[in-house]
Amino acid sequence: SPAIPAVPTCHTRQLVIKMYVVAIITGQVRLWKKAFANPEDALRHGGLQYCRTDRDVECCLRAHRHDVETIYPFLFLGLVYSFLDPDPFVAWMHFLIVLLGHMVHTVAYLRKLRAPIHSVSYTLAQLPCVSMALQILWEAARHL
Amino acid sequence: SPAIPAVPTCHTRQLVIKMYVVAIITGQVRLWKKAFANPEDALRHGGLQYCRTDRDVECCLRAHRHDVETIYPFLFLGLVYSFLDPDPFVAWMHFLIVLLGHMVHTVAYLRKLRAPIHSVSYTLAQLPCVSMALQILWEAARHL
Amino acid sequence: SPAIPAVPTCHTRQLVIKMYVVAIITGQVRLWKKAFANPEDALRHGGLQYCRTDRDVECCLRAHRHDVETIYPFLFLGLVYSFLDPDPFVAWMHFLIVLLGHMVHTVAYLRKLRAPIHSVSYTLAQLPCVSMALQILWEAARHL
Repeated sequence: SPAIPAVPTCHTRQLVIKMYVVAIITGQVRLWKKAFANPEDALRHGGLQYCRTDRDVECCLRAHRHDVETIYPFLFLGLVYSFLDPDPFVAWMHFLIVLLGHMVHTVAYLRKLRAPIHSVSYTLAQLPCVSMALQILWEAARHL
Repeated sequence: SPAIPAVPTCHTRQLVIKMYVVAIITGQVRLWKKAFANPEDALRHGGLQYCRTDRDVECCLRAHRHDVETIYPFLFLGLVYSFLDPDPFVAWMHFLIVLLGHMVHTVAYLRKLRAPIHSVSYTLAQLPCVSMALQILWEAARHL
Repeated sequence: SPAIPAVPTCHTRQLVIKMYVVAIITGQVRLWKKAFANPEDALRHGGLQYCRTDRDVECCLRAHRHDVETIYPFLFLGLVYSFLDPDPFVAWMHFLIVLLGHMVHTVAYLRKLRAPIHSVSYTLAQLPCVSMALQILWEAARHL
């Protein structure tokens, strides 16, 4: 289908799958640390005392929240950007940087690597998004 | 318009409206339990002591967060999946399972039904999403 | 490109950029109030005692969460709505109200303006979204 450029689609799908992996990791950490978000799950897994917060679960939740705040706008910007018929290599570079940035961010965040790594990878992954937003804005302004 | 398959569109819209309903329920529970997230709202509704957390409000917030983490990727995957020109019946089954899974999840979560119900409905609703993600990835890989 | 109506695109992009601005403000407030979400960042900026919550950071996080819960569905609804080939002036009014509503909401929330302002602007910004959802549902129902 010509409406879906192959490489960008591939990368955005990998990001959605990466998010699903973070969700699965969160669930496993909850089971392993016995820290559940609601009384129903806690009761099923040993008792109400396991309805509690845990440092590692919080870490997973923050990583997931980060994805929600950054990957979703990218999915949307990337989709509209694809409609602008960009140069394939430039588009490929945009999407690759976002993909790598988010991969490094998630690993750095969940493995608690030392401080500037996740901030730098976050900033790196946002640069192509800002670039795409400005290109779309520019293109839209030309049609006004 | 041929770009928007009727049934999938119908289902995704119902999911967005379902999310709005969760937001409205959260607001009503906040008013009913007098538990507000910020001092401004608390002052307006009785005093600063009502800027507090509440078990039922937290439950609504977790249900909403769950929707954010699962329905948004589905909206995106479903939109791209529609462009792949899938078999209408297969697409209809995918979207119906997601819709029913999320409806059951929200009711089970807000009504605090016993434990495996919301987990099972969550897993059920994710299966078509993973299926769509893999089909899109496969389609994109063929065009590389 | 005829697939992307100029004015809506312009407005949705401004909303995504507005969200990025909220994210940047959150980061600056974290640095200024020395309140970090994880031990790694805290260690880099003075010590583990700065891994803590802060009232102003929480306020930014709630504003961002609000955007996630309301702007993302709008991006999706707005995109599908554009495909329905709506009357340009009506579409422009829909998108403008959403844009202004969210701008006022963010300013009112972050500046902690008095109570009904952010609730009213939130409700105002949701009205065109509900209107678009119903129009899409109506259009989809006609094709069933």
